Amino acid sequence: MDILTNHVTIRKFTNKQIPDELLEQLLYSGTRAPNTGNMQWYSIVVTRDTGMLQKMAPLHFNQTAAVTAPLLLTICADTHRFETWCYYRNAEPAYNNFISLISAVVDASLVAQNISIAAENAGLGVCYLGTALYNAAEIIDLLRLPEHVVPVTTLAVGYPDEAPALTDRISLESVVHDEYYHDYSREDIYGIYAPKESNPLYRLFVEENQKDNLAQVFTDVRYPKKNNEFFSEKLLNSLRKQGYI
Amino acid sequence: MDILTNHVTIRKFTNKQIPDELLEQLLYSGTRAPNTGNMQWYSIVVTRDTGMLQKMAPLHFNQTAAVTAPLLLTICADTHRFETWCYYRNAEPAYNNFISLISAVVDASLVAQNISIAAENAGLGVCYLGTALYNAAEIIDLLRLPEHVVPVTTLAVGYPDEAPALTDRISLESVVHDEYYHDYSREDIYGIYAPKESNPLYRLFVEENQKDNLAQVFTDVRYPKKNNEFFSEKLLNSLRKQGYI
Repeated sequence: MDILTNHVTIRKFTNKQIPDELLEQLLYSGTRAPNTGNMQWYSIVVTRDTGMLQKMAPLHFNQTAAVTAPLLLTICADTHRFETWCYYRNAEPAYNNFISLISAVVDASLVAQNISIAAENAGLGVCYLGTALYNAAEIIDLLRLPEHVVPVTTLAVGYPDEAPALTDRISLESVVHDEYYHDYSREDIYGIYAPKESNPLYRLFVEENQKDNLAQVFTDVRYPKKNNEFFSEKLLNSLRKQGYI
Repeated sequence: MDILTNHVTIRKFTNKQIPDELLEQLLYSGTRAPNTGNMQWYSIVVTRDTGMLQKMAPLHFNQTAAVTAPLLLTICADTHRFETWCYYRNAEPAYNNFISLISAVVDASLVAQNISIAAENAGLGVCYLGTALYNAAEIIDLLRLPEHVVPVTTLAVGYPDEAPALTDRISLESVVHDEYYHDYSREDIYGIYAPKESNPLYRLFVEENQKDNLAQVFTDVRYPKKNNEFFSEKLLNSLRKQGYI
């Protein structure tokens, strides 16, 4: 399916608004995704108001996509609504636990991907803002998320104002395992990452960041230990606050 | 997009095998999903061997889909491959933490949904086996997953041997929030779940299980507290074993 294999992330959008009817179609496509036990443990918070968009942008570190998109969709893991129903029906829900949370995270991700594909099919562009996990605490406050509701990802959606080329992927064989996981030898790893390491775009990253190689750009600059540990603790605190841990 | 909005879960498959070329197309579609920093923190383990399928089925509680599918795809969160590359390049990865794990879970879910959509588009049927989280420990052992690799979901894939009707969803308005999360009043909840509660199929569930109402079928029978807590602890233990906690 071309719509799947031609996906590129769009980070720069025109200021054209998305018609209400189209937005509704996208959201509806999201809710048709499969989900655990058909309990629909997710919610989608729509951000379109200019003031709200301006408040959301810094929570996504003012990434271009967050700054230029006319629409942000924050897809949340949400057991709260279902549990509220249970309480009112004299049933005793116990979904504030780890397996329920992870199930809800998976379900919310499938909703997001359906919306993303439907959007691209309608000529829109999408950027996943993984920063929703980094700044879950602030997003919870801004969007007034109650207990047992946690942001999983934010989709920045709009009409593309750029046409980037397809990004690289490591070879299909290197992520697929036949019957058993086949661990990687040093030679395997060198072979898998060689095309990436010789990619002129990435070689430029290495040079600009004055690193020895591309792996160090990831570990020292883009996703360093200090940040990962800081944001892990921050996310865990949000999950505690929202009653999942 | 009809392919998204017409999705139904298929649990019963014919014994027709999936051609290699088609399988490769599905897997390729999976890898074109967006992912965090293009680090591709996932792996896909293919189960097609009859002996392996027979060993996998009980790990998915012998669900019809797991028993009849000619193909199981276990999509794993996997930071191991990327980290191995980093080590060999004298870079210091620190991705055995919570934020990396959740990012990898989201990424693996997007891969799964791309594969699922591509499969349905090719006339195949798919069932998500959430039980991959319940029995992660046993799946890790069977598929020989190393540290920093954890199953997220298993897709059962095959040619459909049934044609189920579209399942219900609660109304779109009830999962979408405009600018802020609008919490639910008792009246809201009753309205949202009324169509589900009056659905003849679900009324039968209530009767068969000798419960007062549908919510109790979920909390007492399908997803009870005891199970949720047991499987949460089991999953957390697997994450500890795999080095993520």
